[in-house]
Amino acid sequence: MQRTVFFVSDGTGITAESFGQSLLAQFEGYEFQHVTFPYIDSTVKTIHLIEKIHNIHKVEQIRPVVFMTVLNEEVSQMLHTSGAFIIDLFQTFLPGLEHEFGQHPLYRTGKKRSTTHSHSYHRRIEAVQFALDNDDGARTRNYDKADIILLGASRSGKTPSCIYLGLQFGIFAANYPITEEDLDEPLKLPKPLQPHREKLFGLTIHPGRLAGIRHERRPHSRYSSSQQCQLEVHTIEQIYRKEHIPYINSTDYSVEEISTRIMDLAHLKRRLK
Amino acid sequence: MQRTVFFVSDGTGITAESFGQSLLAQFEGYEFQHVTFPYIDSTVKTIHLIEKIHNIHKVEQIRPVVFMTVLNEEVSQMLHTSGAFIIDLFQTFLPGLEHEFGQHPLYRTGKKRSTTHSHSYHRRIEAVQFALDNDDGARTRNYDKADIILLGASRSGKTPSCIYLGLQFGIFAANYPITEEDLDEPLKLPKPLQPHREKLFGLTIHPGRLAGIRHERRPHSRYSSSQQCQLEVHTIEQIYRKEHIPYINSTDYSVEEISTRIMDLAHLKRRLK
Repeated sequence: MQRTVFFVSDGTGITAESFGQSLLAQFEGYEFQHVTFPYIDSTVKTIHLIEKIHNIHKVEQIRPVVFMTVLNEEVSQMLHTSGAFIIDLFQTFLPGLEHEFGQHPLYRTGKKRSTTHSHSYHRRIEAVQFALDNDDGARTRNYDKADIILLGASRSGKTPSCIYLGLQFGIFAANYPITEEDLDEPLKLPKPLQPHREKLFGLTIHPGRLAGIRHERRPHSRYSSSQQCQLEVHTIEQIYRKEHIPYINSTDYSVEEISTRIMDLAHLKRRLK
Repeated sequence: MQRTVFFVSDGTGITAESFGQSLLAQFEGYEFQHVTFPYIDSTVKTIHLIEKIHNIHKVEQIRPVVFMTVLNEEVSQMLHTSGAFIIDLFQTFLPGLEHEFGQHPLYRTGKKRSTTHSHSYHRRIEAVQFALDNDDGARTRNYDKADIILLGASRSGKTPSCIYLGLQFGIFAANYPITEEDLDEPLKLPKPLQPHREKLFGLTIHPGRLAGIRHERRPHSRYSSSQQCQLEVHTIEQIYRKEHIPYINSTDYSVEEISTRIMDLAHLKRRLK
């Protein structure tokens, strides 16, 4: 059964989505339709939104669910009269925290993430730039500046993981694709990597999944054939084991999960506050 | 006064951080020290964590705060005995949702984000790849495939915004730096952009801030001088206005905020479920 879920915020809505999706993932009885409404910070916008909630309510014949992170009190109160089932992050937790901290909340939107003024902003931007400059084995001369060097077959998830490590944790992550040429000398670590053993971390992936991903890029090619993917994954995993390189299998993980697990397993410390 | 805040999860901890930081941003009485503990999914790990909570409690002489997204019931119960001030996302909201949905929660970690199996994973990866391939005006021939083309001075935040638009929303975002050469013919839209007017979106930034960011890259250069930054920002803003290109000032925003505001102002529809 279809049921619409609204993520509503007077900020970006990113927190509303994140906590709402975590909670919704625990239920599978409905086909949830997600819609996000950021920057709902005026009564006019709220009135339009409430109209939408009413319309959906009529069409689906069941009240919609609203996950909200709204600091503007007027907007918040209006939404509570919308007839939706409301999960309100701020109203639920702020009073308890107010009591614990002995201080009134500021009721101020937005300021949680590093803006361009902060040290963290610089670090994030530099880290993303590092990931781009040192992507796909393009340059290996900066490896002494890297916090970690991800290895893996082409399309095993290295690039997005490196970018996410930079954006989320401020980590300088390079990546090096292990290609067929590297596999010619079987089970030997490619030369540029040898001085940096302690920074190496491997990704692997189910060969069938890899073939599927490669197929999107180059359909019906040798590159995307099951046989080729099996051979590469098998050999690369052998290298990891022989060289004692820690690795994880990315098959069932999202980019966020791969990156967080790497942080954990490689004992990396985040470089953002 | 220093006070330590723990973000604890049996998953990645990303949700715990996101909702915890939103709430903490409303209080400024303490110097909060953030620590994240992902993958706390066993009693052994929980015992170690509770020891840490006790130690911090002793040192700071005030109970630490724990924001938690823990589905494992045993871990959750143990943490509730730690003596910390607990904000528990799941225990607080799951019972209400259970009642509303008429269904028991699955108590299953992790599965909220697109894994490598899903259509969304492919779209995210393709979108990040698109941002990289079409970064910094490197190629302009793919602009017909772009959902949006960001403009701006060098170091005004284009690249991280494009990557985030891809990662978070599945948007194909290219970017084109407006350089001195483009400014030689004053107030004219660079040629490669002319066929794509409806996709253009501008970034601008406070000249002093831009100088600061550039200074990190090339200290004491003409590139990072106040005068040069002022000239570039001023001229670029004139182009935006003359050509009716929508734009935002990124100075006080994080990468997340810039990207979400672009989505909103450019009326882009997210391409991920």
